[in-house]
Amino acid sequence: MSKITETVVEADQKLPIIRMTRDFAATPEHLFRAHTDPALFARWVGPDAMVTRIEHWDARTGGSWQYVSVRDGVEYRFHGCFHEVRPDRIVQTFTFEGDPDGVALETLWFDDLGDGRTRLRTQSLVDSFESRDAWLRSGMETGVDEGYAKLDRMLIDGAV
Amino acid sequence: MSKITETVVEADQKLPIIRMTRDFAATPEHLFRAHTDPALFARWVGPDAMVTRIEHWDARTGGSWQYVSVRDGVEYRFHGCFHEVRPDRIVQTFTFEGDPDGVALETLWFDDLGDGRTRLRTQSLVDSFESRDAWLRSGMETGVDEGYAKLDRMLIDGAV
Repeated sequence: MSKITETVVEADQKLPIIRMTRDFAATPEHLFRAHTDPALFARWVGPDAMVTRIEHWDARTGGSWQYVSVRDGVEYRFHGCFHEVRPDRIVQTFTFEGDPDGVALETLWFDDLGDGRTRLRTQSLVDSFESRDAWLRSGMETGVDEGYAKLDRMLIDGAV
Repeated sequence: MSKITETVVEADQKLPIIRMTRDFAATPEHLFRAHTDPALFARWVGPDAMVTRIEHWDARTGGSWQYVSVRDGVEYRFHGCFHEVRPDRIVQTFTFEGDPDGVALETLWFDDLGDGRTRLRTQSLVDSFESRDAWLRSGMETGVDEGYAKLDRMLIDGAV
């Protein structure tokens, strides 16, 4: 299986879904921890120019989360609930409070590739193609790429 | 606006969504309470032949829920989280534990029609047309209709 070291972002042709795939030099356990430990998550999520502060975090099935990302003094607030948290899969909801009625249902899979490597697959489902395409046009790819590059460095440094 | 006293169930042509619409002789406040108070909810949800027991219930933004419905001694378990709970709209996730990897993102709107009547609109979004169509074929409409008929009677009796 070839390595996917850049984030592959795909828009489904028939469903209002964005899918992303990326490999990490980490075990599934490490990658899961980087997504569920709030102190670790806050260090890597989002673009380089943003600093994230966790407001609420309960990464368990039936829990919820809320964080604020700040760039140049401007706050961007996000919240959601954890539908399911298990070692190989997280299912959660996601709202950017600048678009308070917009809700995505996100699924993350941690696929063990062996040799201490894991493939992260994510799926973000919304209720219209317009919303999905607006997300794709928003520049979210840059934030995702920069975030995963930070996570890569944390994994190499043994910070996770 | 004409009255919708039977549940109208629609499958979206282009999205994996089931939509339902039904009017109730109740204010939005009463209908909201019937969906958020666990003792009331357990009395009307599901088909006539089932008895529902609430296992966990925290109907707040960021809360979660879990219930068991029993028919002829067989238990059907369901769980999800409340993404957002506000007087005019509830957004929540939904899983039937017989299909543990299947997750629906549900939105309920309580539209005030005036004169003590409210239109309930619901939308259930899943990530494939196969899952959506399997739900439609499962006989869920009967359960929904019987449940709303019970709710109608509770509203008439002043039980809500």
